Amino acid sequence: MLTNTRNLRIEWGDCDPAGIVFFPRYFAMFDTSTTYLMERAIGMSKFDYLKAYNFLGHPIVETHARFRVPTRFGDEVAIETAVAACGRSSIKIEHRLTKAGVLAVEGFETRVFVARDPADPERLKSQPIPPEVLARLVA
Amino acid sequence: MLTNTRNLRIEWGDCDPAGIVFFPRYFAMFDTSTTYLMERAIGMSKFDYLKAYNFLGHPIVETHARFRVPTRFGDEVAIETAVAACGRSSIKIEHRLTKAGVLAVEGFETRVFVARDPADPERLKSQPIPPEVLARLVA
Amino acid sequence: MLTNTRNLRIEWGDCDPAGIVFFPRYFAMFDTSTTYLMERAIGMSKFDYLKAYNFLGHPIVETHARFRVPTRFGDEVAIETAVAACGRSSIKIEHRLTKAGVLAVEGFETRVFVARDPADPERLKSQPIPPEVLARLVA
Amino acid sequence: MLTNTRNLRIEWGDCDPAGIVFFPRYFAMFDTSTTYLMERAIGMSKFDYLKAYNFLGHPIVETHARFRVPTRFGDEVAIETAVAACGRSSIKIEHRLTKAGVLAVEGFETRVFVARDPADPERLKSQPIPPEVLARLVA
Repeated sequence: MLTNTRNLRIEWGDCDPAGIVFFPRYFAMFDTSTTYLMERAIGMSKFDYLKAYNFLGHPIVETHARFRVPTRFGDEVAIETAVAACGRSSIKIEHRLTKAGVLAVEGFETRVFVARDPADPERLKSQPIPPEVLARLVA
Repeated sequence: MLTNTRNLRIEWGDCDPAGIVFFPRYFAMFDTSTTYLMERAIGMSKFDYLKAYNFLGHPIVETHARFRVPTRFGDEVAIETAVAACGRSSIKIEHRLTKAGVLAVEGFETRVFVARDPADPERLKSQPIPPEVLARLVA
Repeated sequence: MLTNTRNLRIEWGDCDPAGIVFFPRYFAMFDTSTTYLMERAIGMSKFDYLKAYNFLGHPIVETHARFRVPTRFGDEVAIETAVAACGRSSIKIEHRLTKAGVLAVEGFETRVFVARDPADPERLKSQPIPPEVLARLVA
Repeated sequence: MLTNTRNLRIEWGDCDPAGIVFFPRYFAMFDTSTTYLMERAIGMSKFDYLKAYNFLGHPIVETHARFRVPTRFGDEVAIETAVAACGRSSIKIEHRLTKAGVLAVEGFETRVFVARDPADPERLKSQPIPPEVLARLVA
């Protein structure tokens, strides 16, 4: 299964009055990591692959996270992201955020690829993952 | 068990290029709903109850969410928040975000009350929930 | 000129490790206040007026703000928003955020109404404000 | 005067339903750039220099920005940050965000160094910039 790791720093504006990360910010970091993983699988930027495949996006349908060790501004962290499973139009992704090698946050997410429903542009409709993308995600 | 409901509107800045909520924003909304629930239980603002009980906060240790129906800017939604269980220093809380009566997002969270560790101010230490607060949370 | 006032509360997640608002959050609050003002002027939700007039949005081209008094989580504040001037395709808007009647933040912004350029959908093109909208903005 | 440049990518979660950056996010980016500049001047992480000098932070008292060219998710941008002027307890900083060498956003900010007022811990009190820090900022 495809994996990707990136390093980032926790910043002042990510943190709350307790001086630690305001936890919704972890989900924004994971969202970016998922983008990087998808871009690597597809070989295009998200802007380009959404257009190329006529996707509106790949919104989250379920997520689960465990926060084991707090992080604070200035902390250098790594996020390892991996495909855990792939279905016809959905994908399971896991994130491990570590600080100095210690597991700080685990995130699990299920996403579904969607397009606008041609019959009703107000609605989203799930879309099959193109075979060549699927092949690279589970390679 | 204590419950609380609040109404809010999804705003432009909560939404992503697909025109729907950027999902980390739901967690920020839930965080505020938890604050309102705690304030109601304790009878003080968060600013005041953190000081009164010498808590640094009540960070999340685990969360789980299901996103069933997308919401977009301009949507009026309601968030019902309820205590699901209380332990010695931890609390389980559930959120149900509805749009026009339809369940759009479910969130489950476990939080732990913490203070700075007097032996090491860089560390957080779990704290027992004061008995009078516990009594009101599970009333 | 049209004005609008709304009340809101500063929340934990709006604040930084100094315990006061992380200033970019004020701009998100002002953005929502501008939306409310526009909706009031046009008599439609933003979702509806963007579609009705084929606007992509009304992005900011310039802003200026003065932060006079800090606010912190739990503070109840009011934001008064007013049209300061209107041009052919641009509008100047002013915000005054007060806490207990004291001016805490002043914001000034210039926005321009835009659509996608039909000749190049990657580009934005300024659009004249429709006369009936202009009439209500400066009424 | 001290300067600093950093590269970053505009992400999906930074953008709004028009597909371009939600402008408050630029201020969060500038805030991080200011932190990097200060860390370089002082030779310590922000976490460390706030403690070393007993500062609570260096909040913004005034800002001004011009948005010339929109950016969207996937855009690689550079932010050049420079000290423009230094006073006894305040500093003026300028940011230039460029995309492919083209100036997209200019930001100007004035910050003041503060500590908690010992006479009233609810209040912030401006603090002189330590001489050795001042020397490096204007070097």
